[in-house]
Amino acid sequence: MGKQANKNDAITSRDENFAQWYTDVCKKAEMMDYSSVKGFIDYLPYSYAIWEEIQAYLNKRFKENGSSNVYLPMIIPSSLFNKEKDHIEGFAPETLVATIGGGEKLADPLIIRPTSEVLFSDMYKRLVSSYRDLPKIYNQWCSVVRWEKTTRPFLRGAEFLWQEGHCLFETEEEAWNNAKNMLKVYDDLGKDLLAIPFVKGIKTDHEKFAGAVATYTIEALMHDGKALQSGTTHYLGQGFANAFGIHFLGRNNKLETPHQTSWGVSTRLIGAIIMVHGDDNGLVLPPRVAPIQVVIVPIRQDAEGILDKCRDIQTTLEKMGIRTKLDDSDHTPGWKFAEWEMKGVPLRLELGPRDLASGTICLTKRVNGEKKVASIEEIEKVIPSLLDEIHNDMYQKALAFLNAHIKEAHDIEELKAILNEGGYAKVNWCGDEECELKIKELTSGGTARCILEGEDPFAPTCPVCGKKARKVVYFAKAY
Amino acid sequence: MGKQANKNDAITSRDENFAQWYTDVCKKAEMMDYSSVKGFIDYLPYSYAIWEEIQAYLNKRFKENGSSNVYLPMIIPSSLFNKEKDHIEGFAPETLVATIGGGEKLADPLIIRPTSEVLFSDMYKRLVSSYRDLPKIYNQWCSVVRWEKTTRPFLRGAEFLWQEGHCLFETEEEAWNNAKNMLKVYDDLGKDLLAIPFVKGIKTDHEKFAGAVATYTIEALMHDGKALQSGTTHYLGQGFANAFGIHFLGRNNKLETPHQTSWGVSTRLIGAIIMVHGDDNGLVLPPRVAPIQVVIVPIRQDAEGILDKCRDIQTTLEKMGIRTKLDDSDHTPGWKFAEWEMKGVPLRLELGPRDLASGTICLTKRVNGEKKVASIEEIEKVIPSLLDEIHNDMYQKALAFLNAHIKEAHDIEELKAILNEGGYAKVNWCGDEECELKIKELTSGGTARCILEGEDPFAPTCPVCGKKARKVVYFAKAY
Repeated sequence: MGKQANKNDAITSRDENFAQWYTDVCKKAEMMDYSSVKGFIDYLPYSYAIWEEIQAYLNKRFKENGSSNVYLPMIIPSSLFNKEKDHIEGFAPETLVATIGGGEKLADPLIIRPTSEVLFSDMYKRLVSSYRDLPKIYNQWCSVVRWEKTTRPFLRGAEFLWQEGHCLFETEEEAWNNAKNMLKVYDDLGKDLLAIPFVKGIKTDHEKFAGAVATYTIEALMHDGKALQSGTTHYLGQGFANAFGIHFLGRNNKLETPHQTSWGVSTRLIGAIIMVHGDDNGLVLPPRVAPIQVVIVPIRQDAEGILDKCRDIQTTLEKMGIRTKLDDSDHTPGWKFAEWEMKGVPLRLELGPRDLASGTICLTKRVNGEKKVASIEEIEKVIPSLLDEIHNDMYQKALAFLNAHIKEAHDIEELKAILNEGGYAKVNWCGDEECELKIKELTSGGTARCILEGEDPFAPTCPVCGKKARKVVYFAKAY
Repeated sequence: MGKQANKNDAITSRDENFAQWYTDVCKKAEMMDYSSVKGFIDYLPYSYAIWEEIQAYLNKRFKENGSSNVYLPMIIPSSLFNKEKDHIEGFAPETLVATIGGGEKLADPLIIRPTSEVLFSDMYKRLVSSYRDLPKIYNQWCSVVRWEKTTRPFLRGAEFLWQEGHCLFETEEEAWNNAKNMLKVYDDLGKDLLAIPFVKGIKTDHEKFAGAVATYTIEALMHDGKALQSGTTHYLGQGFANAFGIHFLGRNNKLETPHQTSWGVSTRLIGAIIMVHGDDNGLVLPPRVAPIQVVIVPIRQDAEGILDKCRDIQTTLEKMGIRTKLDDSDHTPGWKFAEWEMKGVPLRLELGPRDLASGTICLTKRVNGEKKVASIEEIEKVIPSLLDEIHNDMYQKALAFLNAHIKEAHDIEELKAILNEGGYAKVNWCGDEECELKIKELTSGGTARCILEGEDPFAPTCPVCGKKARKVVYFAKAY
């Protein structure tokens, strides 16, 4: 075998060095490759195929929500970028800027898009003049560039893939509803596809998006107890519309200003999948996004009839739309088991001479090693139901882990202890940004991840200032 | 209605001013919008949806050809870009270059990718070390930037969307076959999906891709008689592999150098669709890529039962996977007819009180205005078959046009006349670049579009130099 299958190099243990375990898995499962430019990665087929499954799911859901896909330029003129004050302050420090085009210096330097609120606002100014032109519910799939100092594959990079929805509504209510509905779509993506439960709520003002009135978020909990912001939706109010001069003739024949939203998830979700589900043997992929859902490993593949039967089974499964790989390479079954465990294939199907004689196969779940012997005749029933079972196993396992790592912090010492151990500390908060920042300082970097809708304080006062508690904030160390 | 539906502004006549007709149609059919930066456009839903149909078709065909999708960085360090001499000479003049990242000047400026041979070669050097790592058949969907002086929506732009396949093979034969097979895939795309016939062949050395040994091309003929290069595949030989140091341990245990290909089509195909099929009433979309395949226009929609029946029909068609729009807006039927003609919807379905009484509908083909009355009960049969019929009508119409515009040029005067009139002039060519360039000069810009495989000269000598003719070259004015 070539470079990419160094089966014998063990990966670092997950509990020994989680960061090293993570990059080992990314590399050895052939998810990515470090490019020649620091901070940029190559998305290899094994991760890109996961992204395509996410795209297919979201495109369907977006369409149900009235969204259409578009594509806008990848560059933003500096002059345009400077129009919304909060936005520019948030993004300017990490931009990549083009200054030369066709050999000549550009009069107005071009910023490689870090996000596209500016471009959509600029376009909407041209396209919208009447209430009849609303709503505009557009989404774009693209890459964005943020010149980050510290990068990690899929989690934080100089360039990443994402989708960004940008919408314009006649009324404030429609816009708030859109921001909330899209958050539900993202939460469903976790439940339905990624087998990842999220803590879902609203950001504090300090943590919200640069230029938003309010930011909603889904937060996943990684195996090391750190949170990962996995998707956000924003109610942008009328700030961008005013800055860009987007107005429309309303039903009352008066000039009005629309209400705006934006929402996005990125290839960061691939990092979440790896860090929520993976183990010391490598990746563990949720079946609905796994590029290979079932791997067939023949035992004594030289024995008569074995490979033929394996091919029959492969054909049957592929006809059912199940992504199936038959590993008929000349490696030993043991080698193959380790290889496909590393790659996190949800279900392994073994067939040897004894199975062939008895008309059975042996099935092993990657997530927990559970084995099941099934009759070959019933694979069309057994395998889809096992894949669903695996999805549920994985979701429940992740949910149990999440729930075990959400704890109430009654005072600062408890808060510190919870964050040191890993997971979320629920904190009663007065609502002052000062107290929020004090907590960040005292916990060496614990941040307010989100506030859950409708959750009441479990104690009367803020543990920092002693004033009346108004909200419960989930604090955690985060990626 | 808002800005976007200026039904009453007539579009320019196609034969009066083709360039103006084209931009009128692009704008009024809401295919695109000019962005704030010169040369960049916004791809609106009505064009982007066409691109998504092209993507779905090609992804299926690519997969059948063993290809996997990946994603590589959007920037290329200058130092890397300079490694392949021909390539840099071809692309350097039209690059956009980033020189500032995170507020600091970059030591190695970053070129926004104009094409990704360099990045793929650089990656393959890291990923390939043995013949067991081959072939690598990867494709990427992305946008590329070329700092063009003169731009036109979809046809030539500072940024466009495309796919670029980049492959590495053990043997020369495999690589040539890949370049030829992918050309067939593109040709099939025309036949199966776009209803566009291509002239398909190989480029002269003068016209080939910068860095290629050979370039294959599909060339479409626009209504104004100009050719449009619509897709290319390249056999790159070992030039990039040698420049980037990609070598592998062969079956014979010796170090070998792989053979490379690349291939791509772009959103230029959307321009081809517009210019091949469109007419003085606007767009005419081939049914298999049309965002809306059937538009239902109610006649006297206030009459009892009309809208209900229209909705029933819509539901029936949508269940069958037919992209259907019911126009129940408060415009007149005449306004709606013009609107959906402008947008090129392949099939219009009308239903009025008399139809309702007789249980019939009236169907009109956009391409030629043919009408058909059908029973409502048989729509599940009639409509899919009509859509296929329209596809064939459109393909045959375009093919007849193409064939009528390929003519033999026996001397320079004939050649000039053919190119002035529009279309392809077949020219017997000695094979010298000098004669090729002489023709370009004499015809004020006619270029060698391609050489068809296996076509023998129809006269013994080259009309420029009088030497023995070796090949037949198709010359045309081109976009």
